[in-house]
Amino acid sequence: MAHSEEAYLAEPDHAISDAALDTIFRTARTMRQWQDKPVPATLLMAIYDLMRWGPTESNITPARFHFVVSKEAKARLEPLLDEGNRKQTMAAPATAIVAYDLDFASTLPKLAPRAAESLSAMLAKNPDKARYMAMRSAGLQGGYFIIAARALGLDCGPMSGFSNEGVDKEFFAGTQIKSYFLCNLGYGVPTSVRPRAARLGFDEACKIL
Amino acid sequence: MAHSEEAYLAEPDHAISDAALDTIFRTARTMRQWQDKPVPATLLMAIYDLMRWGPTESNITPARFHFVVSKEAKARLEPLLDEGNRKQTMAAPATAIVAYDLDFASTLPKLAPRAAESLSAMLAKNPDKARYMAMRSAGLQGGYFIIAARALGLDCGPMSGFSNEGVDKEFFAGTQIKSYFLCNLGYGVPTSVRPRAARLGFDEACKIL
Repeated sequence: MAHSEEAYLAEPDHAISDAALDTIFRTARTMRQWQDKPVPATLLMAIYDLMRWGPTESNITPARFHFVVSKEAKARLEPLLDEGNRKQTMAAPATAIVAYDLDFASTLPKLAPRAAESLSAMLAKNPDKARYMAMRSAGLQGGYFIIAARALGLDCGPMSGFSNEGVDKEFFAGTQIKSYFLCNLGYGVPTSVRPRAARLGFDEACKIL
Repeated sequence: MAHSEEAYLAEPDHAISDAALDTIFRTARTMRQWQDKPVPATLLMAIYDLMRWGPTESNITPARFHFVVSKEAKARLEPLLDEGNRKQTMAAPATAIVAYDLDFASTLPKLAPRAAESLSAMLAKNPDKARYMAMRSAGLQGGYFIIAARALGLDCGPMSGFSNEGVDKEFFAGTQIKSYFLCNLGYGVPTSVRPRAARLGFDEACKIL
């Protein structure tokens, strides 16, 4: 182990290493085929333990993560997937249902004690605002989740092709939790990736004013 | 430079270094005071150049980033901010308006050439679906953006306290771009951070099924 490198990386205002930037962004690819190599529960917990520190509006952290791992749970999920997503999801060691809790107000006494009372009163009167807040912050948290999984050496296969209503009924009945997207997790088969799709150039997506 | 460490990090299935995990998640904090140290335009471009590779639904990449840097642009933004966000935003070297383009269909011939025609036809008939897709994927991209900025050694100060309508009118008139959140960027004053707020434990936010 090269401890001098670790110390160098820990200096303030310093970028993380080029190899790490590759791992989390540049060479990471959405995987659609999976090696037969399990993901231990401790590693799923480690993803959450990292990503939960990412910022959200007023620290509401509305995202919820239900990891579908067992054969029984996979069988409940399978018919709710678009046909094109079934084979890869059944083969993945784990599939996260990334969701948001519309009742995030109930967690505010812990998460935002000073604002909890006034924020909860506002949200109770304004369910559209609660939904907007939940979706916006859960979206950020979904991004943190994917990066955290990659940072821990996993590959991701995020998917939107499934029945949100079906998943909510099967997995979240009796709660206000709503599915947002799915994310297969495991160790992918690198040769299975599609050719990389284009991205917008800086001037197409950004402006400096 | 400890090249052996770089090689070690580049091995497949390997987590990035502990120091890098600290930088992007564990020790990173939302900053509200800023050092008088500019952020060069090349570094703003580097954030985008990294985060744009993160996955989105059908590669629609709807997020747009307008970096408010000049005194003139800051003056346009200032009255649209909640009072409590004005001082920190005026002091930050740059403020990103993180937005989403409801007209992301127009970019699909480049981003998703095979699906562009059918997807555009579906979206034209279903503006609610287009809005949902834009917000969900732009949320992910907002998460990638914050992590990419941190990975490059910057501090972030994301904010939701501003007039979305006011910003849309002032900065995005004549387009279908809608503001989502703001993010101050620069080098923060570490002693200015608030005590770290709690997060939900694994069992409060997650399940393994």
